[in-house]
Amino acid sequence: MTNDATSDLATIEEGITSPTLLIDKERCRNNIHRMAAVAQESGLRFRPHCKTHASLEIARWLRSPRQQQVNNSNGKIVTGITVSSLRMAEYFAPEWDDITVAFPVNLREMKTIERLLLESNNGKMKLNLLVENTEVVRALERTLSSKNYPKVGIYLKIDVGNGRTGIPFPSDQATDRIDEILHLLQQSGNSNLEWLGFLAHFGNTYGCRSAEEIRDVFDVSKQRLMQLRDLYSSPGQPRPQVSMGDTPSCAVVPPEEMRGCFDEMRPGVFCFYDLMQAAIGACTLDDIAVAVACPVVAKHPDRRELVVYGGGVHFSKESHVENNGIVTYGQVVRKKATTWGSAVDGMYMRKLSQEHGIIVVPPTEEWTDYAVGDLVYVLPVHSCMTADCLKHQGYLTTDGQVIKRMEN
Amino acid sequence: MTNDATSDLATIEEGITSPTLLIDKERCRNNIHRMAAVAQESGLRFRPHCKTHASLEIARWLRSPRQQQVNNSNGKIVTGITVSSLRMAEYFAPEWDDITVAFPVNLREMKTIERLLLESNNGKMKLNLLVENTEVVRALERTLSSKNYPKVGIYLKIDVGNGRTGIPFPSDQATDRIDEILHLLQQSGNSNLEWLGFLAHFGNTYGCRSAEEIRDVFDVSKQRLMQLRDLYSSPGQPRPQVSMGDTPSCAVVPPEEMRGCFDEMRPGVFCFYDLMQAAIGACTLDDIAVAVACPVVAKHPDRRELVVYGGGVHFSKESHVENNGIVTYGQVVRKKATTWGSAVDGMYMRKLSQEHGIIVVPPTEEWTDYAVGDLVYVLPVHSCMTADCLKHQGYLTTDGQVIKRMEN
Repeated sequence: MTNDATSDLATIEEGITSPTLLIDKERCRNNIHRMAAVAQESGLRFRPHCKTHASLEIARWLRSPRQQQVNNSNGKIVTGITVSSLRMAEYFAPEWDDITVAFPVNLREMKTIERLLLESNNGKMKLNLLVENTEVVRALERTLSSKNYPKVGIYLKIDVGNGRTGIPFPSDQATDRIDEILHLLQQSGNSNLEWLGFLAHFGNTYGCRSAEEIRDVFDVSKQRLMQLRDLYSSPGQPRPQVSMGDTPSCAVVPPEEMRGCFDEMRPGVFCFYDLMQAAIGACTLDDIAVAVACPVVAKHPDRRELVVYGGGVHFSKESHVENNGIVTYGQVVRKKATTWGSAVDGMYMRKLSQEHGIIVVPPTEEWTDYAVGDLVYVLPVHSCMTADCLKHQGYLTTDGQVIKRMEN
Repeated sequence: MTNDATSDLATIEEGITSPTLLIDKERCRNNIHRMAAVAQESGLRFRPHCKTHASLEIARWLRSPRQQQVNNSNGKIVTGITVSSLRMAEYFAPEWDDITVAFPVNLREMKTIERLLLESNNGKMKLNLLVENTEVVRALERTLSSKNYPKVGIYLKIDVGNGRTGIPFPSDQATDRIDEILHLLQQSGNSNLEWLGFLAHFGNTYGCRSAEEIRDVFDVSKQRLMQLRDLYSSPGQPRPQVSMGDTPSCAVVPPEEMRGCFDEMRPGVFCFYDLMQAAIGACTLDDIAVAVACPVVAKHPDRRELVVYGGGVHFSKESHVENNGIVTYGQVVRKKATTWGSAVDGMYMRKLSQEHGIIVVPPTEEWTDYAVGDLVYVLPVHSCMTADCLKHQGYLTTDGQVIKRMEN
């Protein structure tokens, strides 16, 4: 493993001793390029969510999704990103000066917000925060009332069906709650808080199982956000911005259906994809750009199962129910000379304990193909979680480059 | 947060900004003391599994489960530990010179084995490894044939019903496979590999839901191991040792039923316990020595739910089905002046995403008791996984001590 070597996979495997997250750079760059094209075609600002990879190095690929820069005729440079915690914002701050923290403001981290505003990028950090209640607005006002802080962008978080965070819309008290927050923002006289508009995450697309279902969720969500935007638009005033999120919608909805409705998109998992996204219908198995290389430590011919070094602390315990009702924790793929190939039918991770993974070997496969000491490549169910589990060791590209990520 | 302060919880809370694993030291020490007493009463060597806490500091408590040392009339000092990876063995090696790695030997980590044997404790490391096939024995022999290595203890891993790793016993080829490995060990002339006996983990107790069920699994497992031991005992020869594992068995089986049957016990999760162990019947909710303090970031009166900072990357995605069919990712407990108290009925973590947790507030609780910015204390479903998720930040005791753990 070197920092910039190019080699075949067999050579790279020699250095792998424990469960290791492999990245196929070409697949990853293709995924980024394809999503950037969707943003381009729909006329939306592309503000990728970086929580999946949590890596400065991979975030640089967002600026140049192909090997070369994309500031050409039809390319757009990504200038802002999305993160899921203030800690992650601090990690990315040395290279990004326009960051949206897509998580409700945590009142216990006001000092981190202050640090980000004062110490990052010579006090030129453009930080966007999500609020959904007056407590948080009041706390932000108290903290940021000094004129020394740069302006903070404020999005109202709206729940258009996902049921996790945000003001539910439509709902009885939705406009009362929104009005109260907007009123507070206006009357405070704290010009450091700048209301930008509405932000929603259509996370309920994760429950879908086809492109049609995703489009149905998207249509309802869009219609609600458009209704809300119209309600808060005044003639002669700039329209409130609308930021939307999820990878499934961005991956399957035709760009023309997004054009003019939203101002930006914040998909995240698209850079790696995973089994869950494939099941949802947001990608194919072949788009998945990460696989965990796991050493075989035991073979059980009686059960036709392999035991691998690769358990819950490496994959996370995220499981996934296949269409046939089988619960899986990962899917085995074939190895090729320089990357991995297609999925091996019926060869999947049946069970995970802390360090062990149990892999079913189907009757169609040669039992002798897998020896104790070999590496098996496994596509993860949820790449965000798996990448986080392996954060301390970072990633290894299939051409031998070690890629660091945020570790804490 | 200081390194040895004693304070009330309210003061300690002031320093908590993000999801933090709290340890109630007294509960933890009591759990250790109780388990040490079981080992003592059953006449078994106590070789605790350290994978749950993975902390040198907490491992020191194993040597003195109460505040004072326990090398008194009825106490025994723990001299050996169990770990779940060679990496973990390296972490513990500076303070422990007798370590069993309760995971199949990974052929890709032979260099780590060599390092442990040559560089730890001035070449005096007593390392015990698990084998279940001839490939691994041959590889160990090749690597360790030099006389410079200290002796390595070899356990044959036996599967007495768990179905994860080990030679299944009874089974058609069990004795053939065992004989083949023993023959290889004897004929090799590599006196550095010393066969100690049989090791099993009754992991199928994790599927139990009462002490009675645990005892049933234990009885079957014990009977099988005793049959195997008798089969491999010869008059005039030392009997093969038998090492058994799991916390549920050790917690509920009367010591007299273990006496004379086993040589050592290797329970692990007993030091922290968790919701899963409580559901199994291995502990009470009140024994659980860890809770995650999570900041409340949003309140949803319409759903009577809190959104907390505390998601899958903090808890793991391990869930648990309650007797009433409800799936939970954590149980809320009441706060007291210096620790936490009883569980709040019906107040549990319903859903986890990467950073968010959704907590149901039952109609019986005062909605106003939980404000945005407050901390909610949540008992984890599986403490091994949760502790691993939060490894980079270690633990915080309820009296304000920061406890480090293995981070990689």
